Amino acid sequence: MPLSLDLSPLLAQLEALGAIGAEGPGRGRTRLALTDAERAGRDQLVAWMRELDLIVEVDQLGNIFGSLPAATAEGDREPLMMGSHIDTVRHAGALDGCYGVLAGLAVQRAYRAAGIAPARRLVVAAFTNEEGVRYQPDMMGSLVYAGGLAVDDALASIGTDGSRLGDELARLGYAGEAPCGFLKPWAFLELHIEQGPVLEAAGVRLGLVRGVQGISWQRITLQGEANHAGTAPMAFRHDAGYGAAATVAFLREQITKAAPGTTLATVGSLSLEPDVINVVPERATFTVDLRDPDEGQLAAAEAKLDHFLETLAGEEGLTVHKARLVRFAPVVFHAGLRKRIQGAAEALGVAPLELTSGAGHDAQMMARIAPSAMIFVPSIQGISHNPEEATDPEDLALGAEVLLRVVEDCLALPLGAAP
Amino acid sequence: MPLSLDLSPLLAQLEALGAIGAEGPGRGRTRLALTDAERAGRDQLVAWMRELDLIVEVDQLGNIFGSLPAATAEGDREPLMMGSHIDTVRHAGALDGCYGVLAGLAVQRAYRAAGIAPARRLVVAAFTNEEGVRYQPDMMGSLVYAGGLAVDDALASIGTDGSRLGDELARLGYAGEAPCGFLKPWAFLELHIEQGPVLEAAGVRLGLVRGVQGISWQRITLQGEANHAGTAPMAFRHDAGYGAAATVAFLREQITKAAPGTTLATVGSLSLEPDVINVVPERATFTVDLRDPDEGQLAAAEAKLDHFLETLAGEEGLTVHKARLVRFAPVVFHAGLRKRIQGAAEALGVAPLELTSGAGHDAQMMARIAPSAMIFVPSIQGISHNPEEATDPEDLALGAEVLLRVVEDCLALPLGAAP
Repeated sequence: MPLSLDLSPLLAQLEALGAIGAEGPGRGRTRLALTDAERAGRDQLVAWMRELDLIVEVDQLGNIFGSLPAATAEGDREPLMMGSHIDTVRHAGALDGCYGVLAGLAVQRAYRAAGIAPARRLVVAAFTNEEGVRYQPDMMGSLVYAGGLAVDDALASIGTDGSRLGDELARLGYAGEAPCGFLKPWAFLELHIEQGPVLEAAGVRLGLVRGVQGISWQRITLQGEANHAGTAPMAFRHDAGYGAAATVAFLREQITKAAPGTTLATVGSLSLEPDVINVVPERATFTVDLRDPDEGQLAAAEAKLDHFLETLAGEEGLTVHKARLVRFAPVVFHAGLRKRIQGAAEALGVAPLELTSGAGHDAQMMARIAPSAMIFVPSIQGISHNPEEATDPEDLALGAEVLLRVVEDCLALPLGAAP
Repeated sequence: MPLSLDLSPLLAQLEALGAIGAEGPGRGRTRLALTDAERAGRDQLVAWMRELDLIVEVDQLGNIFGSLPAATAEGDREPLMMGSHIDTVRHAGALDGCYGVLAGLAVQRAYRAAGIAPARRLVVAAFTNEEGVRYQPDMMGSLVYAGGLAVDDALASIGTDGSRLGDELARLGYAGEAPCGFLKPWAFLELHIEQGPVLEAAGVRLGLVRGVQGISWQRITLQGEANHAGTAPMAFRHDAGYGAAATVAFLREQITKAAPGTTLATVGSLSLEPDVINVVPERATFTVDLRDPDEGQLAAAEAKLDHFLETLAGEEGLTVHKARLVRFAPVVFHAGLRKRIQGAAEALGVAPLELTSGAGHDAQMMARIAPSAMIFVPSIQGISHNPEEATDPEDLALGAEVLLRVVEDCLALPLGAAP
């Protein structure tokens, strides 16, 4: 008799966690990493882990792990980890991150309910500061856990409010003793909402995530010369605002439309100085967010941008300053795990859509140290990071069910085998 | 024996007036319209007018007039007016406006020194709020004087600091009783620094101003849809920031480069919302400053911009809101006065360069009610609205000398004749 996933506690926990940090009707909830509101979320999560009689451990960066021990000591050495994060952006939905963590608890609950000790240790992780709103970079907890950033550097991060991350962690009582990386997963699985429109547009209820796009963030400053809008002939101008605008147009028209058309380019932030109606802008500062699932394409887009800026600077008489803010190479998830997800979905009568994640996720960091994969469920209208973020409860159920089936499939493999 | 222009009191007064509102070494002076610092400038100007035993009158908008009466009552009915303004931008130079006012006093002083009562009343005007920094629109005093704006509307203007113009005028003691327009000039002459690079680049010491460019100021708001930079496919985006950038590029590449190439286009101010690195901008607000010496060209540029925005809005899925801030048609100065300036310059051995003013000036408003003309002297490196604004003293002397010769020429015309 197969294990059974009980949907109602999962939905109830999503609702209860979503009520912590609530901002009022229609305004979502705000649990920025390591704030009092997020501590309340952590305390609730730990309480639910204890209800399931899990072993709760917290590492030096405040990552929380709830373990259902394996039937054997050998099985404890090959932990199968699920998880995501419970911190949020401002005015967030209730699903981003939380769904993956609480669905993991639902899988553990299914084992508890059946009275079965799993063949491999079954762990649910909630990683610190995935959103990166208060402290940079985002996906910090999993990045540090996977060895991509020193724990001391992360603890020394200064937040947008001037706070030091390590101080806040200690204040909240979540500065744990376990070294980051103390549990090396045999595999890592992350269930998440899509946060984009692709599944809904395709009419498919489940996403099989091929990988995560690479991401390149730069801040570019163009320095020209202020001048009088009425007296400076066009040919005499060194217009930093025009330079910024030409770059935005170039990114859209030459980068994102170039074959194979997988590159995304966004200029989300732009400001001019002196920002006066009748003065030619002396300085323009803007950000460039480039993403592509293929490292070669991403690097080519960066190189084309560099070349464009160099030409532009020469023609307009500008100087260019570039600051790299974030650079993550694309990640391709583990082929074996992806095949298992495909099989589990098909066994439930669903043909999943293979897609690339546009957003960053903890699984892309965990992929550095363990075979990893992700499952997506649709976001209604593609909306996320917004109080209106939503997923059909039947899709939430399907995602958790698929997660359970993949876990069962993995646990059926002999110890020592690869996933 | 010709009248003689005494340069030293003119230079001394430029220096003394330039010291009022001084901001410290290298930081220029700030006498925004109707502030305490500008009152100190007004008080000094009035004191100098009284030293010359002029009749001082102040109108309802605080425009100041100092008159040297004519030899006859008939001559008093055909006043020849000179002038400009003494308010400044922030961290201004000492010449913009002040040079035209104080050179007018120098011309009156020449008549006083020679003991000659002029054939026509000789008036020097200092118009209120030419710069338009604190209260909109700029050139307000001359605009109201010429009947282009109701005095009550001007008095009701609310400044950037929340003050009401009429209240400040009363507080400073410059709410006069003369109705705006009470002296109808027989002709108006404005001597001014060029504030641009054309004369210096041409190596010519004197500018004969053909007219003033028309000016069109709009504030444009594009409304799109915020979206996730990593998950929103390019084709799904309604990117207000891209729309703004495409408009800036269009203005440069399609408007200013179109024949005959006289149009100037500037986007000096631009802001995005929410202005976050990884969010597709939902809203872009930017200004468009268009100028052309020809009304047909200016209107054509506006129409092309309208058409571009309409097409862009359809393609990108944006809504467009346009607010007109300023619209002045181009002005061509009086042909007869221009010929007299040409003759006066040539009599002093200088061949003036005919050019169009890029900046707005009081003379363009006065041209609505009287034959008007302007004389320019070079600005070193074209710099103005800047503490480094400067003109060679020999060029300042030449400009004032030409102004005196044009005044003499005009006063030699029989009463009742056109200038």
